[in-house]
Amino acid sequence: MLLIETYQEKFVEYLEEYSIIKEPESLYEPIQYILKLGGKRLRPVLTLMTSEIFNTDYKKALNAALSIEVFHNFSLIHDDIMDDAPIRRGQETVHEKWDVNTGILSGDAMLIMAYQLFENYDNKTFKSLAKLFSKTALEVCEGQQYDVDFETRSDVTIDEYLKMIEYKTAVLVGAAMKMGAIVAEASEEDQNKIYQFGKNLGIAFQLQDDYLDAFGDPKTFGKQIGGDIIENKKTALFINALKLSSPEDSIQLQHLFSINPSNPEEKIQITKQIFISSGSADATKQEIKSYTQQAFSVLETLNISEDKKLILKRFGEQLMNRNV
Amino acid sequence: MLLIETYQEKFVEYLEEYSIIKEPESLYEPIQYILKLGGKRLRPVLTLMTSEIFNTDYKKALNAALSIEVFHNFSLIHDDIMDDAPIRRGQETVHEKWDVNTGILSGDAMLIMAYQLFENYDNKTFKSLAKLFSKTALEVCEGQQYDVDFETRSDVTIDEYLKMIEYKTAVLVGAAMKMGAIVAEASEEDQNKIYQFGKNLGIAFQLQDDYLDAFGDPKTFGKQIGGDIIENKKTALFINALKLSSPEDSIQLQHLFSINPSNPEEKIQITKQIFISSGSADATKQEIKSYTQQAFSVLETLNISEDKKLILKRFGEQLMNRNV
Repeated sequence: MLLIETYQEKFVEYLEEYSIIKEPESLYEPIQYILKLGGKRLRPVLTLMTSEIFNTDYKKALNAALSIEVFHNFSLIHDDIMDDAPIRRGQETVHEKWDVNTGILSGDAMLIMAYQLFENYDNKTFKSLAKLFSKTALEVCEGQQYDVDFETRSDVTIDEYLKMIEYKTAVLVGAAMKMGAIVAEASEEDQNKIYQFGKNLGIAFQLQDDYLDAFGDPKTFGKQIGGDIIENKKTALFINALKLSSPEDSIQLQHLFSINPSNPEEKIQITKQIFISSGSADATKQEIKSYTQQAFSVLETLNISEDKKLILKRFGEQLMNRNV
Repeated sequence: MLLIETYQEKFVEYLEEYSIIKEPESLYEPIQYILKLGGKRLRPVLTLMTSEIFNTDYKKALNAALSIEVFHNFSLIHDDIMDDAPIRRGQETVHEKWDVNTGILSGDAMLIMAYQLFENYDNKTFKSLAKLFSKTALEVCEGQQYDVDFETRSDVTIDEYLKMIEYKTAVLVGAAMKMGAIVAEASEEDQNKIYQFGKNLGIAFQLQDDYLDAFGDPKTFGKQIGGDIIENKKTALFINALKLSSPEDSIQLQHLFSINPSNPEEKIQITKQIFISSGSADATKQEIKSYTQQAFSVLETLNISEDKKLILKRFGEQLMNRNV
């Protein structure tokens, strides 16, 4: 096993090799642009790491890891169009730097290229990877659609919300790890367990993202504190608060999430108070803990050595402490 | 072998079975909408027909045929967004009936669903189909990008144009037939030959489309005569004319293709005259003939019975006489 930083380096090296601009340039240039915008490459690193957890050289998993990263970046291009987002990782988004049509078509090409990256694997592995990929990719689309639908609904339950974040983000973490296990020819049982580990950790991470938006430390949380509140985003904190708060607080909360004050400080303060007094902050913390526990408890049953279980557990802890 | 009409019926029946609206409805409803808009279902029929040409029950090829149709309709949704087209087959386009974001996301889902339709085939067939599909789908994206790029270029050569129509439309016809051959476990040689037959016929058909736009019979040609001329579309007729005409005619043609008169009759008449006097009409006719001949001559070398060669030849002739 190597250090996470080493897997990151090895992955980025491999990505550089992959980055040849073909004809027509107008199709492939935006693809290289988004792939080189950077990021922590967490998903592909998980694929490489998992293949070594199951005793297989990470090199064998490089194409699967790259497929996950290409797919992830495809979804960023199309999501940025849908969200009309001008900036991604501090740089212009693809549809902003070029145009919407370029973003659509280059994204489409990336989705296909992600499948092509499985072609060097043998028939059986190819089919396993492609099946998992299709199932996951379709769930990501469904998750994105639920997210869009929820924007105009006021009756979203916490279960619906949990399903949305599971599909939109967590299944890809699970799939990234399962692909490492497939390449390593781990047993189906272990493949499914490592998927559950990744998926539950992904849900916990996303819920924690919601929590930290309101209650995080401005020094260590990467984004602006209260950003979701300013944007009236119905996160787990909001949905839990609506359900748990008194009728008066519930009405006030719904009012607060219908306005866009130029100075949002008071709105943020009152909202956070309701999140706390309603018990939503605690309930959300509890959900984060529960999904993290679920992830860790499945680890115990994996058919791998104790030191490898420890590596996965440390990784999970680092992720939840946001040190990765 | 069944009649083409019978393959069409069987295919549409199968499509109906496939058409179950899943959750989230907002993602899957537009997919069923576009799939049920109709059309001649030529590509999937070619897949079914080809599997029977190679002595395999068309039923075995239904999922591959459906994949081709789902992909084709995916490309229609995304192309219609890019072209800002309001109408498709006499009905509202997806992005017009819903919105652009729905069109992007439902299209993405269809591209994934097209891959999933191969999952019932065994490992080897699955990989063959998925590889061919990826290669073809990527070429279709490249063809679409060339088409976009050519709009703003004045120096497109006929070779570049031929490559564009090959990628944008003809390779999918070739792939539709090759998939039938793959499912039927035809030899690789025959698989490649039937691909060449379909691809060359596809190029001939597309060139004929260009030709008939100017010189077709208004009674039998489905579209408005002169439509491409009105829209200043640089078709084979235009590109050949630019190359073959006198410098004066060339300048006039370029002028005509830079204006949008409210009454286009005179523009159409002068353009058609230049197409004829320059020799472009004849050159284009010659190219149509040449690609049709290439398609038919590869038929002779296929390892199938003479009566099956005749079926394919008749189909090609019907297609080029626009009776299919």
